[in-house]
Amino acid sequence: MKTVRTIAELREALAELRGTRAPGDARVGFVPTMGALHDGHLSLVRAARRDAEIVVLSIFVNPTQFTEASDLDAYPRQEAADAALAAGAGVDLIFAPAAAELYPQGYATTVSVAGPLTATLEGAGRGSAHFDGMATVVTKLLLAVQPHTAYFGQKDAQQLLVVQRMVADLGIPTRIVACPTARDADGLALSSRNVRLSAAERERALAIPRALAEVTARLAAGERSVAALRSAAEEILAPAQIDPEYLAFVTPHALTPVDTVDEEVLCAIAARVGAVRLIDNAVLAPAPAGEKE
Amino acid sequence: MKTVRTIAELREALAELRGTRAPGDARVGFVPTMGALHDGHLSLVRAARRDAEIVVLSIFVNPTQFTEASDLDAYPRQEAADAALAAGAGVDLIFAPAAAELYPQGYATTVSVAGPLTATLEGAGRGSAHFDGMATVVTKLLLAVQPHTAYFGQKDAQQLLVVQRMVADLGIPTRIVACPTARDADGLALSSRNVRLSAAERERALAIPRALAEVTARLAAGERSVAALRSAAEEILAPAQIDPEYLAFVTPHALTPVDTVDEEVLCAIAARVGAVRLIDNAVLAPAPAGEKE
Repeated sequence: MKTVRTIAELREALAELRGTRAPGDARVGFVPTMGALHDGHLSLVRAARRDAEIVVLSIFVNPTQFTEASDLDAYPRQEAADAALAAGAGVDLIFAPAAAELYPQGYATTVSVAGPLTATLEGAGRGSAHFDGMATVVTKLLLAVQPHTAYFGQKDAQQLLVVQRMVADLGIPTRIVACPTARDADGLALSSRNVRLSAAERERALAIPRALAEVTARLAAGERSVAALRSAAEEILAPAQIDPEYLAFVTPHALTPVDTVDEEVLCAIAARVGAVRLIDNAVLAPAPAGEKE
Repeated sequence: MKTVRTIAELREALAELRGTRAPGDARVGFVPTMGALHDGHLSLVRAARRDAEIVVLSIFVNPTQFTEASDLDAYPRQEAADAALAAGAGVDLIFAPAAAELYPQGYATTVSVAGPLTATLEGAGRGSAHFDGMATVVTKLLLAVQPHTAYFGQKDAQQLLVVQRMVADLGIPTRIVACPTARDADGLALSSRNVRLSAAERERALAIPRALAEVTARLAAGERSVAALRSAAEEILAPAQIDPEYLAFVTPHALTPVDTVDEEVLCAIAARVGAVRLIDNAVLAPAPAGEKE
């Protein structure tokens, strides 16, 4: 496994890999990350490994998608450990550019997705610059790597929707593959930010997956009122002193709020636990009604 | 020569052409147009023909880059005549999509270039939506055609700079080739809008290339003051009742205004003649000074 720093080196390394594996039609699978790899990332790598002859992973803590300098500064960086984990999971090539490689002097271009996909939930909480920064860097990475498939986790559900929209809209010739949220044994969704939680904070944070599980269970038991489901979630969050930034019940593609769960719904939560902002979600389907099919 | 309407048909037709010509490494040259082809467009086709095995020309009157509905409505459309001209000049494939093919229901993505390249001159006159619309559609067309080279006329000098910036910034793997402005025998820069000029308006419009020629001549004679060069241009424009929207002397890459011509300068004019908005420009170099090399 090799690590390259520039787009020119990346292209050269890809050409070399293509030459050695199924020349001419080797498929490239791509996992973009901000490093601090955990098993969620590695599950994306394993999915890429199943689909593609060549697996590329990028590590780039993209400054333009951080709307808080303190969050950018605190974001964990551990490239040597990441390289070992990536190699173990079957990555062929790491692309780990410096910021100046992706945003050289005079850089002026932004890719934006308009509308509720970027204005609501994370967009409302973190500002529109967050998704502009993310969409722009993902466009640049997809054009640099030119993969057949690229892998994104369902944990960042809204990011996944924005990427799918942008790739379809611009006609970027990459298939976007959504992968399930990876969780620790205690239920907490894996996130690079989890290492910043104290033991006590982590205990409190577990109320988030428990609230999602409770909502899922109530729905399975026949509850369809979002007001009732919201109360059930809040009854679990409140004792853990978690006051969510949002606790949303929205359609899973357009992110339109709903009052009753008649079809699939995305239940998404964002909350600060201590200094750490966590997000999680579940896609809910209503229990089949007796009188319906 | 074939005309295709969808991105899927385009990809299929390109694969077929690649199969018949220099399989594996046929170079694709691309000329994006809004149709109403004239010899300016055909000079771009001839340049593409020299560089590439396969020449693709697109015809798409892009609604998102028109900031005036009347201008969009009045823009000439003559696809049958365009196809004959394109075939005669050596185009292999015309891509002429409907608006709904490029902007389907739910479309939400914009590519923007920030800063003076888009805020000044045409950007100030036509609004920022103009260059956003242009940058977005050119990105989409380049990703659809995936050409090695794409050809743009120097007449739209600012458009060329925006495209160069965006292609470099996003890392679109296409080389942008700038081609000289094509002119009629009387000096008027070729434009699809020229057909809307009456004979009398056309006569007045000739003051624009004459003003640029006068500025060029004064500069060759040693004049370096922009104030003096501007007066010389205005003395030619005023009798033709041309009150320019802008008459700018700016650096040719950053579009920074200058007061004296010490290095290469872009002199750019936009003016309405009757109902028709015309643009033209010249790249000026100062006369070599005796005491300098």
